[in-house]
Amino acid sequence: MTAINDLLAFQRQTEALSSVAERLGWDQETVMPRGAVEQRSEEMAAIESVLHERRTDPRIGEWLDVADPQSEAEARSVDLIARDFNRASRVPARLAQELARLTSLSQGIWADARANDAPDDFLPTLDQVLMLKREEAAAIADGGDLYDALLDDYEQGMTGAEIAALFDAMRPRLVALREKILDADTRPQPLTGHFPQETQIRLARICATAFDYDWTRGRMDIAVHPFSSGRWQDSRITTRVVETDPFNCIYSTIHEVGHSSYELGIDPDYAFTPLGRGVSMGVHESQSRIYENQMGRGRAFAGWLFHRMSDAFDGLNIADPDAFYATVNRVTPGFIRTEADEVQYNLHIMMRFDLERDLISGRLSTDDLVDAWNARFLRDFGVAVDRPANGVLQDVHWSVGLFGYFPTYALGNVFAGCLNRAMQDAVPGLDDALAAGDASPAVEWLRENVQRHGGLKRPRALIEDATGGDVSPEPLLAYLEQKFGQIYGL
Amino acid sequence: MTAINDLLAFQRQTEALSSVAERLGWDQETVMPRGAVEQRSEEMAAIESVLHERRTDPRIGEWLDVADPQSEAEARSVDLIARDFNRASRVPARLAQELARLTSLSQGIWADARANDAPDDFLPTLDQVLMLKREEAAAIADGGDLYDALLDDYEQGMTGAEIAALFDAMRPRLVALREKILDADTRPQPLTGHFPQETQIRLARICATAFDYDWTRGRMDIAVHPFSSGRWQDSRITTRVVETDPFNCIYSTIHEVGHSSYELGIDPDYAFTPLGRGVSMGVHESQSRIYENQMGRGRAFAGWLFHRMSDAFDGLNIADPDAFYATVNRVTPGFIRTEADEVQYNLHIMMRFDLERDLISGRLSTDDLVDAWNARFLRDFGVAVDRPANGVLQDVHWSVGLFGYFPTYALGNVFAGCLNRAMQDAVPGLDDALAAGDASPAVEWLRENVQRHGGLKRPRALIEDATGGDVSPEPLLAYLEQKFGQIYGL
Repeated sequence: MTAINDLLAFQRQTEALSSVAERLGWDQETVMPRGAVEQRSEEMAAIESVLHERRTDPRIGEWLDVADPQSEAEARSVDLIARDFNRASRVPARLAQELARLTSLSQGIWADARANDAPDDFLPTLDQVLMLKREEAAAIADGGDLYDALLDDYEQGMTGAEIAALFDAMRPRLVALREKILDADTRPQPLTGHFPQETQIRLARICATAFDYDWTRGRMDIAVHPFSSGRWQDSRITTRVVETDPFNCIYSTIHEVGHSSYELGIDPDYAFTPLGRGVSMGVHESQSRIYENQMGRGRAFAGWLFHRMSDAFDGLNIADPDAFYATVNRVTPGFIRTEADEVQYNLHIMMRFDLERDLISGRLSTDDLVDAWNARFLRDFGVAVDRPANGVLQDVHWSVGLFGYFPTYALGNVFAGCLNRAMQDAVPGLDDALAAGDASPAVEWLRENVQRHGGLKRPRALIEDATGGDVSPEPLLAYLEQKFGQIYGL
Repeated sequence: MTAINDLLAFQRQTEALSSVAERLGWDQETVMPRGAVEQRSEEMAAIESVLHERRTDPRIGEWLDVADPQSEAEARSVDLIARDFNRASRVPARLAQELARLTSLSQGIWADARANDAPDDFLPTLDQVLMLKREEAAAIADGGDLYDALLDDYEQGMTGAEIAALFDAMRPRLVALREKILDADTRPQPLTGHFPQETQIRLARICATAFDYDWTRGRMDIAVHPFSSGRWQDSRITTRVVETDPFNCIYSTIHEVGHSSYELGIDPDYAFTPLGRGVSMGVHESQSRIYENQMGRGRAFAGWLFHRMSDAFDGLNIADPDAFYATVNRVTPGFIRTEADEVQYNLHIMMRFDLERDLISGRLSTDDLVDAWNARFLRDFGVAVDRPANGVLQDVHWSVGLFGYFPTYALGNVFAGCLNRAMQDAVPGLDDALAAGDASPAVEWLRENVQRHGGLKRPRALIEDATGGDVSPEPLLAYLEQKFGQIYGL
């Protein structure tokens, strides 16, 4: 009994310190004075150094050797602690430090290169990051597949081969749907006008409330790139405002409410344990996506939102709720992943997945990356990339070493598809509530079936228990074909 | 060379973590969702536990044994690290934990007792705090005076006997001045009206800018009790708003700008070292007070402020700058220390100093504290305390174990008096600049002579070097007699 108690008490403090580090990151992106950058970097380094020491503390190995968990939750906690300890212990301290130093620099180099449309300024640094990440993957994989070792950090138990099979099954139907839409005569009208920041923020708060965001355990601020931050009793969201495009603010907000509500919905008994957080990036994204897309961009909620926005902005250039529903679901050609609609988004992910898998395996070198990106984009989207900032330089992920992260976005969409089908079957009257600006019946179902479990179940098991079936792309594809077929009269 | 470098590198990380803890405290008082209290308490406990372990790390003792400082700054850093290490090491871990647990509880018990005007609900807890603080003082004092051991934590090198002598020298002239003022025929008019929050905040920002607050390394938020937080590149202020009393907001802001500017004014080379913070509570208070009182409530700045406030609030019930100057310096009878004017403030401190010294020495028991307080207040102020919330329950300090802290407020006033006289002699045209809403010539003198040195010099030496004379209450008393004599026509 002593070993398990000591282990969990030690972990409790580590979880608290890790939560502090996350709060510090929030501060930096929202309220920190701009002159405090160097100081914050030293503060973050100090707390990360404490965290690294704790995660590789040899006492964890000793406790694990004799730990005797007394419940399912304790057993799963021990598994997760062991997994992190083994991953962290396999990476030499020298490599961990080099990666930390390089990725803190390389993000700035990437940002400058993107601003200057100059990939050659960034690719040598990316190559260094890639070499270190391959070294890290080799240390963790211990003879296994390098990409799988990286992917497992974001999506426990998932392999590159499984993702590849999933994407192969999805691609033909997505490509076909995309082509039909772009060939269709229907062209939903874009929203135009000037939409003052203050009104957008007020509407965003109303939408967050409609999605049952718990303001007593959260808050909303403005950030350059929207994110959510924190867990248990304190999960905050951020949004951004573009005064020509209020959907940016509103749908970013609903998306982040999905992420934050997942963290806030976890069983409070799991706070300060490894179960007290979203179980994987894919499941996390399933929550943000089902809030934003299946609900937020659904016909019922769009009808409610149309009236709220018409009132707030004194009329819109969109005639009625049906036209508005088509507007929030417009499909147009575009280079940028983060601006993509529900149909094309997954195609953006698939090309990144294939490219990064080849980079990690060594089949593709960074020297050939720009050509490979551009050729693949032309093949998948039928348009030539006009400039690197719209191509290979658009995403921050690789610059900070996030290889294996991209596929979890599409996996989140697949999970959201499965969950949405099950939820529609299980809860009658969802659309009536959403049409009245009330997502709470849906949120309650998600909380009960997904969110409250935190890290207790493995990701795939969690979704399968919630939906009563295997994880499959079929519900997502059927949903997209039905929804966009109707909007575009296909 | 290795020992000193290792010691300073270790300290650097400790300083960074301590800065993180302070930032977390700021978050709690300003932006934290109200439902996150328990979580924050566990996060704070985790980081304080890491800090306590580092402050008593046995390696510090080993490094100190062989440390060979290479400069005056390094030598002083080593002294300060040794001082903290010795203090922390002398306190048994069991006692430190009991004190931490008790004082986190007792603050709430005090707040409830004050709200209910029920001293008996609080005094048993205060007695427990007192017993633990005496035990702590005995451990640190190692045979020396208990009160001195506590005082030294806030004001290095100062003793209770020195404070007592200083206060004895001040009391008669303060009492005489107070009586003459209250007997005078002059009665400055109070400011009355309704002053909207938004306008007050805008004015407060203008005042902070007038006092050269560096907004690139700071920010201002609203808090229940105004405070400043942080150092080096990030020192934030808070203020409060009472819509019937804009002076509360404005002078709180100027006061906190004094504290924050001290931290921001320290030589950047001292960041992340023990020299990188205000050297004592007394010196800290000297900066907040000279900003707020000698400058902020001086005739020159008051004239400028009169016009700013008249414009912002569309006229005031005060006729002209001279009357306004008298209004911001009104002396009226009152029970509450934090609301006291410059003349009576120090009398509030003197009675607390005598009472807490007797509590620590055992000459006074908590059973007799209410009677002792009320008797002393009647003697010093000529008025009977009407209820405990206006008497012994008014201050938070003792509930959280801050014995030895009160006298540093009056010491700050004494230091401010000395600094003000030297500054007036050294810098011509201060009042002309203040009359134009520009405190920067004064701030520059303070930065050069006080703030930039951080912890390099001991408190008294710092003030004496800055003023070219001994620390004495004479300049403060002469300033008060001259200023209030003129306002009240004495």
